Amino acid sequence: MITKALILAAGKGSRLRKKFRNPKPTVRFFGLPLLERSIKILKKAGIKEFYVVVGYEKERVKKLIEKIRKKLKVEIKVIENPEWHKENGKSVLCAEGFIKEPFLLTMTDHIYEPKLIQEVLKFFKGKKIDKTYIIVDKKISDTHIDVDEATKVLFKDGELVDIGKKIKDFNGFDTGLFICNLDIFGALKEAEKGGDTTLSAGIRKLIKRGGVGVWSFEGYFWMDIDTPQDLRLARKILLKSLKKKEDGYISYLFNREISTRISSQLAKIRLSPNVISFFSFLLAVLGSVFFAFGKFILGGITVQLSSIIDGCDGEVARLNLDDSPYGAVFDTVLDRYADIIIVMGIFYFYFNLLPLWKILLFVFSSFGFVLASYSKKEWQLRFKKNLKEDFLLRLIKRDFRLFTIFIGGLLNKVFEFTLILGLFSHLVVIYKFIILQLFKKDSITH
Amino acid sequence: MITKALILAAGKGSRLRKKFRNPKPTVRFFGLPLLERSIKILKKAGIKEFYVVVGYEKERVKKLIEKIRKKLKVEIKVIENPEWHKENGKSVLCAEGFIKEPFLLTMTDHIYEPKLIQEVLKFFKGKKIDKTYIIVDKKISDTHIDVDEATKVLFKDGELVDIGKKIKDFNGFDTGLFICNLDIFGALKEAEKGGDTTLSAGIRKLIKRGGVGVWSFEGYFWMDIDTPQDLRLARKILLKSLKKKEDGYISYLFNREISTRISSQLAKIRLSPNVISFFSFLLAVLGSVFFAFGKFILGGITVQLSSIIDGCDGEVARLNLDDSPYGAVFDTVLDRYADIIIVMGIFYFYFNLLPLWKILLFVFSSFGFVLASYSKKEWQLRFKKNLKEDFLLRLIKRDFRLFTIFIGGLLNKVFEFTLILGLFSHLVVIYKFIILQLFKKDSITH
Repeated sequence: MITKALILAAGKGSRLRKKFRNPKPTVRFFGLPLLERSIKILKKAGIKEFYVVVGYEKERVKKLIEKIRKKLKVEIKVIENPEWHKENGKSVLCAEGFIKEPFLLTMTDHIYEPKLIQEVLKFFKGKKIDKTYIIVDKKISDTHIDVDEATKVLFKDGELVDIGKKIKDFNGFDTGLFICNLDIFGALKEAEKGGDTTLSAGIRKLIKRGGVGVWSFEGYFWMDIDTPQDLRLARKILLKSLKKKEDGYISYLFNREISTRISSQLAKIRLSPNVISFFSFLLAVLGSVFFAFGKFILGGITVQLSSIIDGCDGEVARLNLDDSPYGAVFDTVLDRYADIIIVMGIFYFYFNLLPLWKILLFVFSSFGFVLASYSKKEWQLRFKKNLKEDFLLRLIKRDFRLFTIFIGGLLNKVFEFTLILGLFSHLVVIYKFIILQLFKKDSITH
Repeated sequence: MITKALILAAGKGSRLRKKFRNPKPTVRFFGLPLLERSIKILKKAGIKEFYVVVGYEKERVKKLIEKIRKKLKVEIKVIENPEWHKENGKSVLCAEGFIKEPFLLTMTDHIYEPKLIQEVLKFFKGKKIDKTYIIVDKKISDTHIDVDEATKVLFKDGELVDIGKKIKDFNGFDTGLFICNLDIFGALKEAEKGGDTTLSAGIRKLIKRGGVGVWSFEGYFWMDIDTPQDLRLARKILLKSLKKKEDGYISYLFNREISTRISSQLAKIRLSPNVISFFSFLLAVLGSVFFAFGKFILGGITVQLSSIIDGCDGEVARLNLDDSPYGAVFDTVLDRYADIIIVMGIFYFYFNLLPLWKILLFVFSSFGFVLASYSKKEWQLRFKKNLKEDFLLRLIKRDFRLFTIFIGGLLNKVFEFTLILGLFSHLVVIYKFIILQLFKKDSITH
């Protein structure tokens, strides 16, 4: 199991510096300095000890490291590279003597999707690292990567053939991620003697010595951040990725368009996702109060606003890598309370205006909202996989529910709209999770 | 991957026969003939092709096999052993020429906990079967196994040293389960030449030839059924195992005592678990109607009855190996509807008797019953593990809920009891799944 990571953070990053006046590791991406972001991702994936090579403006970077150490409660060893103005192979070499077992190597100016790092570490878990491996993105066309600037690789049968910025024949990009064994140091020294202090030169020496392995992938996001333009592009791609294909219709077409814009700002000020969840909940309560006093239009608008803000907590969490099962449980259970409270407000207003049977039906129908979500969770728990949500199931999701109440409010039909959607939710639940299950029951092949 | 199984079903089973007058493979264990039970377990664990050796009363056994083939939709090849009166090694030998790859070997008169078979097959998945493996129970003291009758084994460092009914020095029992490679046939022939047609003799030859591997376990239930007493004991143990440690207090102490007795009978007549779930649901509806008309005592009793019967569906499913995620989803969602309908009955009766605020509080409180179950499922989905249920969480389980309503009915306090338990459920949910989550949120180590 790989538990150590070497992070290169010594370079000048002059192209970024023009804009930000900070050394690269401290440049913020949403709410997190690039270096903190790297360490947070690696820690979540299972790395326990960090070695960070600093050089350019080392005091400022060391101050940042001190902060990260306290905040994330991780061991970080600082390694100084006095020759930081040389190429990055030099920085790796500085770690010789500090790291005595295979390690993960990465660069502070590279942004990765957390899943990629997790998959890499999962793959190498329990495997003997008898050589160095390079992590390669094999998607080379139709990509956001700047092909001219990227370090390209040629590989065949899981073995690296060539690497460099200028090679003509290539079938992948060097992502700046490596699983190194200790041979890398010898190879870098050999390359240095030949006058080349780049990491690529060291890797080329390793190819000759005993080969370099390739772990290639496609479809995970990563990016090398060199310029302010790169940073903007990475932000844009990440924001866009917050739209999920399992989103409901209203969420996908409407809510996310607004909520991601809000989240982009909230993430920058590092607002806690829990605070956002709670604010969305308070808006729902306010909507309920409006309904209780017959202010249907205000109630509807407030509820729809709450629905939009409800997207922000998860988005901010993902942008700043704060997502956790705790937060997800908190948000989801709070959402159910918000639903119940909204319905109770409507119930309160209509209680004395309607006959018993309508009130009974309304109370029954409102349970449909909770059961819609309940049944899906039950199904996923029993089958141990995600439920593919079809048209019917998307109509009983929360985004559509709150949107229906919103429209009901605007049209002064909030009782009817809520009642009908509640009953409809029951029908879908009864059909999908009771009747359909029944017919499949006898088949023991599953 | 092992996909073939050889099942020995040729013997006379004379000690069982005295009581049942049927050949052993057709003797019923709860609702299933022993042979059908074996095949059902093996199929669920991933076996695709079955080879059944028949001999004694082969026509009756073949008729049973025909039924199983249709019912379970599996491929079963019948192999006849004209010398069925000899020992079981002979039966294995009859399969030579039919099976051409490593296979699982088992006996029709052995009962196994499904999990054991699953674990065995999971272990050998993707492994090269370069020798024969014996599955050994290493729990030799404090066991239900009849030590005198059992085939005992001595093993060391994962290798079999000796096997036999009469060996003095042993550290495990032969469970009658083997993962065989094709060398077994040669070894059996060699043993036969020496005048011994037992499977154990063949295994002893294999020990000399290249060794026999041992896969040992502890804590899974299995039994060799030789006598009517064995059958009774196995039934008793299985019935007892239906009590689960995650059961609620009322369920564990009271409901299960009754429901397992009922299930034992229902399983014999092979009543479908879904029918039982639905019957329990109907009882809940009936209880609700009683409540709606102010018949509190009748309502309470009916609801408690429904709660007891609600245990039977899962029990019968497990006894007859009919448990499936479909059935579990069906039952769970139906339970939620039963809860809602019971509460609606109480609501209906009190609607005109109470002030608005009490009615509002009651409606709100009743959501607590659904959220109690909802929040646990949400937690388990997010954390991908089971939630350890402590005292508080057990008090908001369904068995306790329906018991509270039952007592409330008896004491003419059903409104108050339901209201208070509902509010209590909310408090537990809010504490466990909102407040506690919030405080853990900031810790990213999880």
